Amino acid sequence: MTALMCATAITANAQVKEDFVPSPNNQPGKEYPMVNSERCVRVKVKAPEAQSVKLDIGGVKYELKKDAEGFWTGESAPQDEGFHYYQLNVDGADVPDPSSLYYYGASRWGSGIDVPAGDQDFYALKNVPHGQVREMYYWSDVNNAMRHCFVYTPAEYDQNTDKRYPVLYLQHGGGENEYGWPQQGRTAMIMDNLIAEGKAVPFIIVMDNGSWTMPRPAAPAARPAAAQGQHLQGGQRPRGGMGLPGGWADGIANTFLKDIIPMIDANFRTLADPAHRAMAGLSMGGMQTKAIAFPHPEVFGSIGIFSGGTITVDESKSVAGFRESNKLVFVSFGSRELENRVAGFGDGTDPKVETEQLKASGMNAHFYVSPGTAHEWQSWRRSLYQMAQLLFK
Amino acid sequence: MTALMCATAITANAQVKEDFVPSPNNQPGKEYPMVNSERCVRVKVKAPEAQSVKLDIGGVKYELKKDAEGFWTGESAPQDEGFHYYQLNVDGADVPDPSSLYYYGASRWGSGIDVPAGDQDFYALKNVPHGQVREMYYWSDVNNAMRHCFVYTPAEYDQNTDKRYPVLYLQHGGGENEYGWPQQGRTAMIMDNLIAEGKAVPFIIVMDNGSWTMPRPAAPAARPAAAQGQHLQGGQRPRGGMGLPGGWADGIANTFLKDIIPMIDANFRTLADPAHRAMAGLSMGGMQTKAIAFPHPEVFGSIGIFSGGTITVDESKSVAGFRESNKLVFVSFGSRELENRVAGFGDGTDPKVETEQLKASGMNAHFYVSPGTAHEWQSWRRSLYQMAQLLFK
Repeated sequence: MTALMCATAITANAQVKEDFVPSPNNQPGKEYPMVNSERCVRVKVKAPEAQSVKLDIGGVKYELKKDAEGFWTGESAPQDEGFHYYQLNVDGADVPDPSSLYYYGASRWGSGIDVPAGDQDFYALKNVPHGQVREMYYWSDVNNAMRHCFVYTPAEYDQNTDKRYPVLYLQHGGGENEYGWPQQGRTAMIMDNLIAEGKAVPFIIVMDNGSWTMPRPAAPAARPAAAQGQHLQGGQRPRGGMGLPGGWADGIANTFLKDIIPMIDANFRTLADPAHRAMAGLSMGGMQTKAIAFPHPEVFGSIGIFSGGTITVDESKSVAGFRESNKLVFVSFGSRELENRVAGFGDGTDPKVETEQLKASGMNAHFYVSPGTAHEWQSWRRSLYQMAQLLFK
Repeated sequence: MTALMCATAITANAQVKEDFVPSPNNQPGKEYPMVNSERCVRVKVKAPEAQSVKLDIGGVKYELKKDAEGFWTGESAPQDEGFHYYQLNVDGADVPDPSSLYYYGASRWGSGIDVPAGDQDFYALKNVPHGQVREMYYWSDVNNAMRHCFVYTPAEYDQNTDKRYPVLYLQHGGGENEYGWPQQGRTAMIMDNLIAEGKAVPFIIVMDNGSWTMPRPAAPAARPAAAQGQHLQGGQRPRGGMGLPGGWADGIANTFLKDIIPMIDANFRTLADPAHRAMAGLSMGGMQTKAIAFPHPEVFGSIGIFSGGTITVDESKSVAGFRESNKLVFVSFGSRELENRVAGFGDGTDPKVETEQLKASGMNAHFYVSPGTAHEWQSWRRSLYQMAQLLFK
């Protein structure tokens, strides 16, 4: 019904609710894109000679309407609360909206928009003590290349210089990179607010790149040296590392176990034991958590899988020492993807039932459902918010 | 001549030198844009229904040519060495190249490309000890808002926890923001390499936002709380602060003197005296340095003005205590802009002569010219590289 209201608004502006406000993700000084109280997204772009301009969001393309000055404007149907990737299509060219900020997802840097959410206060920027997000480059023997990561340190980290902290390794999803959690994930805001309210203990969060693909055709040696830095700045996954036994899984697992974790323990005041080391991730990052952290209870004591599967009772018994030493298993999904999953898409299993069975078997297992969201960032912001309150306690 | 070779290449591919390689600024996995050994930029974009697609770089628009699959391709004339902003134009719509990484400049987030330079080794990512670039949010009483900055700490900072460090406040230019020096400026790479070679002493660099404009019409209170964080993430200058006596100049000066410097001295192990505090900036940032640091020798002991003017002997005598306490005045320009300036554009004065006169009058003044570059980032990367070797010694 509201979808119809927005759709028809493109040709007849009578029905759309005219309470649009600029998006929080607009470029400085830009008035568009906008969002109204029905969560419809309105864009505006100048393309005087274009024959057709579309807004492409949520898997639907909406025709925009041209005015006398050559500006194209139009609205989407209502979107779910939270962050969504989108793009414009100008005469067949898929391009970013020149008015929005850009994020890496869907395997490209492009437009993103945040639709106001009823619970957005938990990831809002507030005047509370703020931690730092530190950009780091480091050498990887496994990759035989420089790598790039972001590390969140809580506000008190530089004040209590004798105190050591637990560490969460937090992974992005497929088609995303290490910029996902710091940017669209709003990790620092979520943690600063939780710690300020006393709901979470202060801990370090490492956000690295979980992609593992073959390098591009051009050999690094044949490229300007500057390129190596700028590729990484842009979120390029490191080159090299190909030909490792087992490929992707072993490649990224070895990178974590042999390079990333020792580098973090050497450069930060960490509590370097499994009880104080956790791994979590969304989608592909959740599968990586299950592939890397779950089989190594001697390294990781807590596990979070967001929209990426579960750990069954049988699986929990298949890893020596896991059931004895694990402190927390956190599993979450967006309500919309969970409905699809239980309805029989994917493997048709019910992760809620499986997680409850794991809890009933004596593990500290938690299951969370993000209301009214799909396989998108609002589900994962909420999952971090929930898991962070359970970690290292 | 080479310009012609590139230009004609659009219609007749015979003359262009076919040794194009992917740009270091491409999005992960993207083959285009490319640059050849003549420093021509080649772009490729799919726009099957478009009537006209242009490459807009260096103030010139180059017509692209469409192939049977709907891909448009073409080259620019040779560009200067270093970093350039650019965009595409699709049927009259100015849009970012969907294949490039994005940078904030020319008052927009959009495409940028790095043309290989003979001296690019000094800003290349190498396997040397790396510092960190720390993203920080902090409260500003002057702005009555949260602000956002980046702070570079040298590699040894977290190892020598008893050592205190000098600080350089480094400002971007007009239409840019606090992302300029960390991203297109390659500040961390330049400093890591200089320190590793023993050519610069380790120091902290603060990169904040020097913009000072009125807030947007929509009142912050009327916006989602999340917006405040995401605006700042996107490089939005903070709201509020308007109505300060003197407007822009006093507004940004008060922000530095009352908010930024005390915040940095409170959160980092700084040597908090004028002998160990410097300010430098490019273009507008150079003018800000002259407006903020030059009149306050009791706060700043060293000054750098990149493509932003000079300090004359008479001016040096107009500020009480400046000549007695100043440690360094560094002035630089790109050779192309200097030629224009001396030729009579702008005020027609010769900053080289003025800086030599300042040096002859007994000040530690240095003048640097970046060869073959204009009012662009390669001039400013080189200026930082030169000034950093003179600072705090």
